[in-house]
Amino acid sequence: MNAPVASLRRNTRDWHAFAAQAFNDLRHLGFDGVGITRQAFAEGEAAAMAAVARLAEAEGLAVARDAGDNLVLSLPDEAPGPYMLVGSHLDSVPRGGNYDGAAGVLAGLICLARMRSEGVTPPCPVRVIGLRGEESPWFGKPYIGSSALLGALRAADLGLKERGGARTLGEALASVGIDVEGVREGRPLIDKRNIAGFLELHIEQGPVMVARGWPTAVVTGIRGNIRYQRLVCHGRAGHSGAVPRWLRSDPVFALAELVSRLDEHWRVLLERGLDLVVTVGVVGTDPAEHATTRIPGEVAFSFEIRSQSHETLEAFDVLLRTECANIARERGVTFVFDTRQDAAPARMDERLVGRLLAASRRLGLPAETIASGAGHDAAVFANAGIPAAMVFVRNENGSHNPDEAMEIDDFLAGVDLLYETLTAGA
Amino acid sequence: MNAPVASLRRNTRDWHAFAAQAFNDLRHLGFDGVGITRQAFAEGEAAAMAAVARLAEAEGLAVARDAGDNLVLSLPDEAPGPYMLVGSHLDSVPRGGNYDGAAGVLAGLICLARMRSEGVTPPCPVRVIGLRGEESPWFGKPYIGSSALLGALRAADLGLKERGGARTLGEALASVGIDVEGVREGRPLIDKRNIAGFLELHIEQGPVMVARGWPTAVVTGIRGNIRYQRLVCHGRAGHSGAVPRWLRSDPVFALAELVSRLDEHWRVLLERGLDLVVTVGVVGTDPAEHATTRIPGEVAFSFEIRSQSHETLEAFDVLLRTECANIARERGVTFVFDTRQDAAPARMDERLVGRLLAASRRLGLPAETIASGAGHDAAVFANAGIPAAMVFVRNENGSHNPDEAMEIDDFLAGVDLLYETLTAGA
Repeated sequence: MNAPVASLRRNTRDWHAFAAQAFNDLRHLGFDGVGITRQAFAEGEAAAMAAVARLAEAEGLAVARDAGDNLVLSLPDEAPGPYMLVGSHLDSVPRGGNYDGAAGVLAGLICLARMRSEGVTPPCPVRVIGLRGEESPWFGKPYIGSSALLGALRAADLGLKERGGARTLGEALASVGIDVEGVREGRPLIDKRNIAGFLELHIEQGPVMVARGWPTAVVTGIRGNIRYQRLVCHGRAGHSGAVPRWLRSDPVFALAELVSRLDEHWRVLLERGLDLVVTVGVVGTDPAEHATTRIPGEVAFSFEIRSQSHETLEAFDVLLRTECANIARERGVTFVFDTRQDAAPARMDERLVGRLLAASRRLGLPAETIASGAGHDAAVFANAGIPAAMVFVRNENGSHNPDEAMEIDDFLAGVDLLYETLTAGA
Repeated sequence: MNAPVASLRRNTRDWHAFAAQAFNDLRHLGFDGVGITRQAFAEGEAAAMAAVARLAEAEGLAVARDAGDNLVLSLPDEAPGPYMLVGSHLDSVPRGGNYDGAAGVLAGLICLARMRSEGVTPPCPVRVIGLRGEESPWFGKPYIGSSALLGALRAADLGLKERGGARTLGEALASVGIDVEGVREGRPLIDKRNIAGFLELHIEQGPVMVARGWPTAVVTGIRGNIRYQRLVCHGRAGHSGAVPRWLRSDPVFALAELVSRLDEHWRVLLERGLDLVVTVGVVGTDPAEHATTRIPGEVAFSFEIRSQSHETLEAFDVLLRTECANIARERGVTFVFDTRQDAAPARMDERLVGRLLAASRRLGLPAETIASGAGHDAAVFANAGIPAAMVFVRNENGSHNPDEAMEIDDFLAGVDLLYETLTAGA
């Protein structure tokens, strides 16, 4: 944590103490004995929403719920017309951390509270949203709150079972008063034309900003992905001592060559400036046939590529298939592909990104861009045609675990960046 | 099966029908519903020994048991003095094949029967041995019969439990009248000075001879090995989307690079004429942490190298450790080694190998050499200081399975080679 952090301009309040206290309150409410649990459309999330609402009321902000039962904060004297929506989600994964999601809602709250305490009227009205149900563990699907709001849930999603099997998603939505029939028919619960843009502050879930020494960075896009859950390389099993190299069809050596070749392609593509990450998360020979003295008959593995660029994803998928075919021919093995799964990348709005970078420069923060490897509600807004952008705040140890470590100073630098962007005008 | 097979010289009997019938008899005795099971120091092995003894008696051969209760056949008018021992084992693995072991005993039997029927006296007396307990599944240890005979069992081995847990090895040996105290003290059960040499015919357990078109080949050595049952490459777990290449410590990519580098070393060493096989039989990430979207924290794997050369084994082990160190440094991972296990290579006797090759040339059989990747009783004799050599017979589909496929013509070519070697003199 070695980069300078901009101090708030015209700052008349101790927002550091405010933020530390607010995060502490949320931590106490959500602590499960190990980490933080704020179950979506259930008590944990509701408690966090109520706590944020109390903080907002104490700051003299208007507090409401939208048709998706998301928490909405605004200035009491909000001007009419399209507004900028600022926020993130208030649920967490089971045994997760305190900052993933909640930091973005508190950042918006502090922006509004500062406007009110400093008497600043933003050129475009600002609303802060605390979204429900962003994390996938609760119903096996992420971004439920933002998707329901924007008419992007599918009818089939409503039958998804709650973790533990208690309710369907449809029942959970109905329990908080949401128009489930509207959701089923894909009707947005909000007038999208009134949303001028969506800004989300979030902790970084990777190690780049710690390594680079950036307290804040501006997200240029949310990586899409192509995934195979289970590819299998089939070779020919044999006696480890009795089959010479020229007569082997060894699937482990074939997989090693595949991964090494793709690693080299990856390295070269990065040098050309493309955005790409490649992961083999799972690999294994068949435990039923395990022997040190046996050339294995097959090895199974998962394969995932992520990129901000649709073209890069497709090109690397072609490389994967080409190298599999090359190695299959050279080594006498076969690669069997399962169904390809994919998710489209989401581009952040260039104009909003430009405004965040300009504000970073004015505040003496690094005007640096970064890709988001994980998905966010901002992607749902972007894919619904709403200009969206994100601010990442430096954070150690990743997310979705109790060891998330965001410094309050870094958080306030991110708040500063939002505030500067919202108040400086387009 | 496309190479010419030498016909027997001065052959007055139809040994093809004899061999086919003998193998059929053994198959019927040992069939377990799936494959062949001849349990060591138990009924299956005893039945095979009795069947071979009956065949030998019908041919007018002398039938005896040695102090290790192995079956011993000889000419009734055997000359005194050191004898050449010819044979193999009569047990099988569970659900194994009919030829692994038994072919070597029947080959010896046919040699003696031919000598008797053709009135040929070998320059050096010949005894044929049907050894007990060569396969490791029965007591978790291979070469029990030959090791007991030569005083090479260890006292601790006598406590090994029988497959299924019924008896200890000591109890099993005692049940057939073996002097267990002598075995415990490492006393040979046979006078080694009387053994001029040991010749073993065995099916090849790899695919080389089928690929090369050799019905027979002469074994130059039995590969030793260096093994690691469980090496672990530790990296740093992370979010597959959020950690860029330059900040990864990915153990799967590290292992892929290690295997690819060692594969290249292997290729180069083979080009230089060295004998080597390299196998990663087991590989796997931790199933408790499996996720397509997670950079795994570690991957475990086994590693085995085999060679006829002690120096090649040691040199490749150094290469393994050097490349692990290089990759650990370059990729920020660590390799943790478990205990190294090793078995010394066994050299076949050069003079015996030379006699077998010369006999091959005289018979028009390929004068080709091959390494044995699997272990054999011949290695126990060689390591006890007795000149030993082996003949391999072409066989498809490996061994230790019901699909072993040896042609009787190839078997008879191997018998021919033994007979020519035994009768032509040194």
